[in-house]
Amino acid sequence: MTGEPTPRRRRGRPGYDQAAILRTAVELFNRRGYDATSMGDLARELGLTKPAIYHHVTSKEQLLGRALDDALDELTAVVTEAAEDPAGRSAYERLRGVVRRSVEVLVAHQPSVTLLLRVRGNSGVELAALDRRRRLDERLAALVADAAAEGALRDDLPPPLVSRLLFGMVNSLVEWYRADGAYDPATVADAITTVAFDGLRPRGDQAS
Amino acid sequence: MTGEPTPRRRRGRPGYDQAAILRTAVELFNRRGYDATSMGDLARELGLTKPAIYHHVTSKEQLLGRALDDALDELTAVVTEAAEDPAGRSAYERLRGVVRRSVEVLVAHQPSVTLLLRVRGNSGVELAALDRRRRLDERLAALVADAAAEGALRDDLPPPLVSRLLFGMVNSLVEWYRADGAYDPATVADAITTVAFDGLRPRGDQAS
Repeated sequence: MTGEPTPRRRRGRPGYDQAAILRTAVELFNRRGYDATSMGDLARELGLTKPAIYHHVTSKEQLLGRALDDALDELTAVVTEAAEDPAGRSAYERLRGVVRRSVEVLVAHQPSVTLLLRVRGNSGVELAALDRRRRLDERLAALVADAAAEGALRDDLPPPLVSRLLFGMVNSLVEWYRADGAYDPATVADAITTVAFDGLRPRGDQAS
Repeated sequence: MTGEPTPRRRRGRPGYDQAAILRTAVELFNRRGYDATSMGDLARELGLTKPAIYHHVTSKEQLLGRALDDALDELTAVVTEAAEDPAGRSAYERLRGVVRRSVEVLVAHQPSVTLLLRVRGNSGVELAALDRRRRLDERLAALVADAAAEGALRDDLPPPLVSRLLFGMVNSLVEWYRADGAYDPATVADAITTVAFDGLRPRGDQAS
């Protein structure tokens, strides 16, 4: 926002495409906070001049919108696939499936999903993203309710609360998952579905 | 940061004490982001002049530090109580207890815990908070490992991963819990311990 950035390297033609600028922007938004990050900061991080960035993107908000759309488009595809199931699977099977697929999307799109989960609604772009996210949450809660109605889930917990907790556990991944860490995505997906549906107590034990 | 705030009401002596200023600051940090919030914003929100605020607090970072300490002191007390148990309860019982008590703390101190969970390490105060949080996470992971070693938890999941997921589910509360909403803290604590330890499938069912 202020002054000229000192580029780490200056190029006659920027060696970045929109996708690369977006990747760096999202990383910076997550590290410093969207509101605290200026286009000048982004230019410095990329080693570009501000005009070179504006050659590719119109505004910081455009970058935010693209990142949020990336996350929301992927999550919407997962939820839609589970809701409009042609194979006649039970709601319970579809719910297990959506949990697994959500883990895969969170891992594969971790930066943009992290950004999405931190959105507070400070602008039109953020409010639109929150609205799309709310509709996804409603469809997930409906799927939990369907699985409960089938008798596949215990009947002593309110389905909306179950949905919050289940996807709260899934979403918490973005805070600690590292692609180069101890667990691959399949291990995490197995662990989440096991904890959520089967519980931590060994089966056969009396619950205390 | 810029210009003079337009106070909603101006007072000869500020009608706020430190605790009230801190409450409003934390609410504002959570709503707008810490980095994006200036002391001028806080003054406007309180209807005070900036000098009136500086009569009570030395800096924005001091307010952040107090809020993070509030959350961390409460969570440390819960973890310490579980770790240094005089009554000879099993690790499993202490783990269930720490989950329940964590829910109570999150609900009672939701604004400061929300702030804590969003800290990224952008300053010395934030790094110190992250360090305290990391030590709490290690103690919780050790408690999960102890419960697993007792045979009270299923043995096919790595205890550190279980700890991440369990407290990820607990922490996700801060994103949606509302004191005036549909669920009281005891209902939420029951639901989390039930989901985590007993699972969503009715007991007696074959896990699929």
